Amino acid sequence: MDYFQMSEQELRVHEASLAEQYEAYKQQKLKLDMSRGKPCPEQLGLSKEMLDTVTSGSQLQARDGSDYLNYGGIDGIPEAKELFADILGVSPKEVIIGGNASLNMMHDTISRAMLHGLRGSKEPWAKLPKVKFICPSPGYDRHFAICELFNIEMIVVGLTPDGPDMDAVEKLVLEDESIKGIWCMPKYSNPEGITYSDATVERLARMTTKATDFRLFWDDAYNVHHLTATPDPLKNILSACKEAGNPDRVFIFSSTSKITFPGAGVAVMAASEDNLNAIRKQLSVQTIGPDKINQLRHVRFLKNPEQVQLHMEKHAAIIKPKFDLVLDKFEHEFGGSRIASWSKPNGGYFISLNTLDGCARKVVQMASEAGVTLTGAGATFPYGQDPRDCNIRIAPTYPSLAELEAAIDVLCVCVKLTSIRTILSKSA
Amino acid sequence: MDYFQMSEQELRVHEASLAEQYEAYKQQKLKLDMSRGKPCPEQLGLSKEMLDTVTSGSQLQARDGSDYLNYGGIDGIPEAKELFADILGVSPKEVIIGGNASLNMMHDTISRAMLHGLRGSKEPWAKLPKVKFICPSPGYDRHFAICELFNIEMIVVGLTPDGPDMDAVEKLVLEDESIKGIWCMPKYSNPEGITYSDATVERLARMTTKATDFRLFWDDAYNVHHLTATPDPLKNILSACKEAGNPDRVFIFSSTSKITFPGAGVAVMAASEDNLNAIRKQLSVQTIGPDKINQLRHVRFLKNPEQVQLHMEKHAAIIKPKFDLVLDKFEHEFGGSRIASWSKPNGGYFISLNTLDGCARKVVQMASEAGVTLTGAGATFPYGQDPRDCNIRIAPTYPSLAELEAAIDVLCVCVKLTSIRTILSKSA
Repeated sequence: MDYFQMSEQELRVHEASLAEQYEAYKQQKLKLDMSRGKPCPEQLGLSKEMLDTVTSGSQLQARDGSDYLNYGGIDGIPEAKELFADILGVSPKEVIIGGNASLNMMHDTISRAMLHGLRGSKEPWAKLPKVKFICPSPGYDRHFAICELFNIEMIVVGLTPDGPDMDAVEKLVLEDESIKGIWCMPKYSNPEGITYSDATVERLARMTTKATDFRLFWDDAYNVHHLTATPDPLKNILSACKEAGNPDRVFIFSSTSKITFPGAGVAVMAASEDNLNAIRKQLSVQTIGPDKINQLRHVRFLKNPEQVQLHMEKHAAIIKPKFDLVLDKFEHEFGGSRIASWSKPNGGYFISLNTLDGCARKVVQMASEAGVTLTGAGATFPYGQDPRDCNIRIAPTYPSLAELEAAIDVLCVCVKLTSIRTILSKSA
Repeated sequence: MDYFQMSEQELRVHEASLAEQYEAYKQQKLKLDMSRGKPCPEQLGLSKEMLDTVTSGSQLQARDGSDYLNYGGIDGIPEAKELFADILGVSPKEVIIGGNASLNMMHDTISRAMLHGLRGSKEPWAKLPKVKFICPSPGYDRHFAICELFNIEMIVVGLTPDGPDMDAVEKLVLEDESIKGIWCMPKYSNPEGITYSDATVERLARMTTKATDFRLFWDDAYNVHHLTATPDPLKNILSACKEAGNPDRVFIFSSTSKITFPGAGVAVMAASEDNLNAIRKQLSVQTIGPDKINQLRHVRFLKNPEQVQLHMEKHAAIIKPKFDLVLDKFEHEFGGSRIASWSKPNGGYFISLNTLDGCARKVVQMASEAGVTLTGAGATFPYGQDPRDCNIRIAPTYPSLAELEAAIDVLCVCVKLTSIRTILSKSA
């Protein structure tokens, strides 16, 4: 039913009934957490065998005879570079393998740019009066947190089903030399679940930037994280940059956090050899190198892109029913209501729910009081400021189906109640 | 025999015979590397069982019920904090556990100080016209490399058998506000093998510094790496700083690189809770956390300080004969010659050899030409500049006893030959 076609009387009756339901949920003293995109225990179980791939009896020699248990190598073992190069569609020389967190590689890349500059920099970014990043939003809160840490001013641009609003992006980078980067989640984006179109990828690769050291921070976190048998295609950004004559424009990041383990995974970055050689030089001062044995575990377990794909299908089999449950509930509760719209992603970890303007913060607060923890409203925008206060990020993977159902029931009641009250307050 | 008592004729005869020996070594086409302090294969073997402590069947739940395979926790698992707190003599709240490399933690600590400042900083170090560190020398080349990367000016002070020349240090830090830190290797220092006296530790903790954010960068790399049954005692620096009313003065670093594996170890830093809370806040933006499973492996294998001590005795049993071989050779070849002096460490990874002034570079070059790679001459001083060109760092742990003997034979001939030529050129 269309809430905007209901009479005040009808709305008030509905409100009373919803308020009763809400109070009943509160009595259940639920404790459900949907705040972060976390794999569930069954997903973690899929990779436990990896822990058996390296034991005291294992062969731990590299091809060159060196021992992976000893010193040597700062940018990853060759086998791991080859595997991730295949997955990302780049060459092994265009890959650096890190420790557990791709976030760490993103942070450190910006930290290095601040202190030492990048290829093409006139000076280190920290010496400039102002550094700005474009932040297509809704987006990933941890990207925005890095900008805040480094006092990088964030410029919001909209996110369309094809990617960032490219007209806006092109205009901004053409005119403003202080814009040094853009955060991109090109595939199954957090939280919208959109995948950049070929045209978007090409325009990002090709566009003219006033800054000589502008970079795409390409967080390809959900590269192989499909939910359907017909994955979204994504054009290869490094190839596109090379073709456009801007080979150094992009830093690609990815990790196995949601392939194997968030608590014991492997992170990777990819870029032009020139870009990476500059980083390798700094890495050789920063560290004696990453954990090589955990890289070896990953290579032995994941083997090749085909095996990775089969492995990811097992993940999808576990989490697809959770996405379906949320989407079915939303359709059932909100279909035709005009009080909510939501994403229907083909992959990734999130469903993005948009309420009526001015409702998101209240909904998240109400849900929290009924024991359902959601990602903080506003978190998907720079500085935590959702200009329309309407976006709520749903992370359906961690809870069990039963818990998820309970949580979404609570959420739906909170959305409906808040919507009705908003409509009533406006008509008053 | 005292080379300075030999006649020119005697020296020339000796030179000819040594030159012949050197040519013979060259013919052997040796390929021996003593350039870095690396554990040997037998040492790595001591910890291989650790790889079996976590398997697919293992209990991987934390005490609070969370799964170590999943997200959560940015500063290390509680069990690891407790173990390393016990080893370092601090409280678990005064510990952060990192990834594979303590060097990474040192680098990042300075990087954060540059960009964000430390507790007590008036502004981030990168905003200052000049930042300086005191570098007791000979010291560790990787410390100096970090300073060079960040354009931190290095001030050399001498290293005595009790630690840095404290009269010089106290004077410098009292007068110069731009001096923000000092590199300290307090126990079995690289390369001298000295351990700081209680008085040195107390003076470092107590001294008045002009900078309000001065720090001791306390690289306690060889904390448990004894070679004898009577280890050098080292006064607890964090306690000393607290007693002196300077609880925030010290950052302690250590790792298991030479306890378990350089290629798959665990790094740790310790400091006051206030210091660490500031870092934890930044870490929560920088990373989703370190590999928790490798920390668990270490806890299960190393168990407690007593077990660590037993484990380190096994290391000592392997490497002590190598140190003895070098020291015996030096005594035999150089005893009474007055052309060389050397350290006799009770622990750590190095023997420091001092030649006549102006000889080190030539010796290392000659040895290299005969197939024996030593640490580059000068590497133990800031900017690679050994003012007397006399210090050579010997890393005896990696080669087998037979290889080591061959390498030291070559080295001894190179030292003697270079010394004679130097004496002759001066008397000419």
